[in-house]
Amino acid sequence: MNNSRISAFSDGVIAVLITIMVLELKTPEGSSWAALWDQKFVLVSYLVSFAVLAVYWNNHHHLFQLLKTVSGRILWTNLVLLFCFSLVPFTTSWMANYPASQAPELLFGLTILVSDMVYTLLGFEIYKQQDFVASYWRSIWFKKAVASGITAVLGLALALILKLPFIVMISVVTTLIPWIIPDSEIEKNVRADKTE
Amino acid sequence: MNNSRISAFSDGVIAVLITIMVLELKTPEGSSWAALWDQKFVLVSYLVSFAVLAVYWNNHHHLFQLLKTVSGRILWTNLVLLFCFSLVPFTTSWMANYPASQAPELLFGLTILVSDMVYTLLGFEIYKQQDFVASYWRSIWFKKAVASGITAVLGLALALILKLPFIVMISVVTTLIPWIIPDSEIEKNVRADKTE
Amino acid sequence: MNNSRISAFSDGVIAVLITIMVLELKTPEGSSWAALWDQKFVLVSYLVSFAVLAVYWNNHHHLFQLLKTVSGRILWTNLVLLFCFSLVPFTTSWMANYPASQAPELLFGLTILVSDMVYTLLGFEIYKQQDFVASYWRSIWFKKAVASGITAVLGLALALILKLPFIVMISVVTTLIPWIIPDSEIEKNVRADKTE
Amino acid sequence: MNNSRISAFSDGVIAVLITIMVLELKTPEGSSWAALWDQKFVLVSYLVSFAVLAVYWNNHHHLFQLLKTVSGRILWTNLVLLFCFSLVPFTTSWMANYPASQAPELLFGLTILVSDMVYTLLGFEIYKQQDFVASYWRSIWFKKAVASGITAVLGLALALILKLPFIVMISVVTTLIPWIIPDSEIEKNVRADKTE
Repeated sequence: MNNSRISAFSDGVIAVLITIMVLELKTPEGSSWAALWDQKFVLVSYLVSFAVLAVYWNNHHHLFQLLKTVSGRILWTNLVLLFCFSLVPFTTSWMANYPASQAPELLFGLTILVSDMVYTLLGFEIYKQQDFVASYWRSIWFKKAVASGITAVLGLALALILKLPFIVMISVVTTLIPWIIPDSEIEKNVRADKTE
Repeated sequence: MNNSRISAFSDGVIAVLITIMVLELKTPEGSSWAALWDQKFVLVSYLVSFAVLAVYWNNHHHLFQLLKTVSGRILWTNLVLLFCFSLVPFTTSWMANYPASQAPELLFGLTILVSDMVYTLLGFEIYKQQDFVASYWRSIWFKKAVASGITAVLGLALALILKLPFIVMISVVTTLIPWIIPDSEIEKNVRADKTE
Repeated sequence: MNNSRISAFSDGVIAVLITIMVLELKTPEGSSWAALWDQKFVLVSYLVSFAVLAVYWNNHHHLFQLLKTVSGRILWTNLVLLFCFSLVPFTTSWMANYPASQAPELLFGLTILVSDMVYTLLGFEIYKQQDFVASYWRSIWFKKAVASGITAVLGLALALILKLPFIVMISVVTTLIPWIIPDSEIEKNVRADKTE
Repeated sequence: MNNSRISAFSDGVIAVLITIMVLELKTPEGSSWAALWDQKFVLVSYLVSFAVLAVYWNNHHHLFQLLKTVSGRILWTNLVLLFCFSLVPFTTSWMANYPASQAPELLFGLTILVSDMVYTLLGFEIYKQQDFVASYWRSIWFKKAVASGITAVLGLALALILKLPFIVMISVVTTLIPWIIPDSEIEKNVRADKTE
């Protein structure tokens, strides 16, 4: 109950966030394809943010299969994560409205990086609860989290130093790749868990 | 669990989409019936989009009764479908703000057509999982999907070539007809499934 | 499952509607109490609409306890009801922006009246399914539905003929009174049902 | 069922509220960090309101574990509570748009104070149902409620008399502190309950 309710609440928040972002997509001014084309960057940003939240939802739901009881710490780590998610529509629309400008892209990348870190912490808490902390450090899950973290940091560094436009967005999309296929290890743990 | 959570998330997204569309309905400027009448096209577009999402929700929920376990592919096909749905408020309001103009209507029709295609693919994946792929091609479900697809394409073609206004909207409404009554075949399969 | 999913979807839609209405409450222009006072009518309208949807949710959830299987007709009656609900934020904000003007108030009252009628039909369908149609006509539930219907019609008539301002809103609030206390009859039926 | 549905509805409303508040965060005008900095007060207000609703959700969900059957009174107390919550995005954005002005801060503080009072009443109703009213007055839960109430009143008084800016917000944040760690007493009661 407790357990299913935190999942349900997280899903609710993510479902609302992923859909209200579309309200940022203002109606093109004019009925021509050109008018739509003017919004290309807004549309791409929306697609990226949708993908980010979709991948997070998918892996979050996956991770929570390992959750036994909701400790205060897990509850709050999860709420902080949801807060980071809730900033995505805001950072996305800032970035979308000022294509190729540094500050908005850095903020967007930073939001994702912080989310990654909080999510990694959440994963650690949940693994710990399962008494396989040791295995955590060796887990594919942790390796993926580190890989994504480094990619995100690299993207931010390049944007900051070389002032390359769009690099943050590219790096964010890259961080998603390892998370697209659900983690088979967790499945195994869950199954092991059930068969016990 | 896994299974019920993907349904719950899809429902959440559709529930939010179907309701935030109403935010596109701007308050009429003036307190007269005429002021409301000026919004007739916006209101009709809203009604159509509500119907589209309602019919999808209904059949989606119906189809998911057949789902046994959520494979990565089903998960992602479903997320792509939800993304297409999430564009409906945007394409609707563009179409609603530029009545009888070609580009917005084509985009609206295209969004629905792509949704149909992704939905058909999703149906195929779920049938496949049930080891009655063979029966899939003969299923009423598939026949309906094809009929809707052709209707949508026809609507787009007429709009593109003959430049007929409103034809896309009419074709979209037509594609819904076969889906209004829930599919008895699936019911049978589900029942068969349970009695096994 | 089927059954719980239609309830969950209805709840989702009502939960979103009841909350997005607050987005219609524009920030007062100015930081004085006077600036807030200028919005009194908007705030009252919001309160009324919140109450309407809250009462509906409460009774809807109550009625659905009687639901055994979701027939196509029940599904669609419910979707039409949700569509009527989805117009409430729109009609509310029109009424709120043009205090004491006839057309907006009539539209608001009309939306509620249609909702009442659809809801009564939904109740009939669900009772029918329970093989106590006969008892339906004698049920407190039906008496309440009729009472509310008449009150709503009276309100509309007075607004239309005598052009009394605010009368529609008053009548709508009046229609809610019989529904505030959940229907004990249904409780009995549900219990009877379970003990069978 | 009844029981889980009221929880689910409350969660739905809170999940939507906590996320639509982000729509109040308007895109900074300009792509510089300075443009973002101009929004600092809006961002802080958003953070505070997110924390308020998150803490409420957490404790609400906690409290509802004690709920046995949903009486009419509990249902309505909960709906009034949700109404108070639904005003938070409105009062937040008023306060955020007029930093350090008295009226908006008082209204914000008042909304939270009323929520506290309604929430305390809800807690009382639920405890009463559990036949340990006596224990209620001695419960940590009640002590926390009183402490928060006094803090909120103090904040309002200081803002009203000394006209100190931001004091309301500080007091509101203070009221949250005792609620951050879930109440172990309730856990005990729930466990006791289950083991019976």
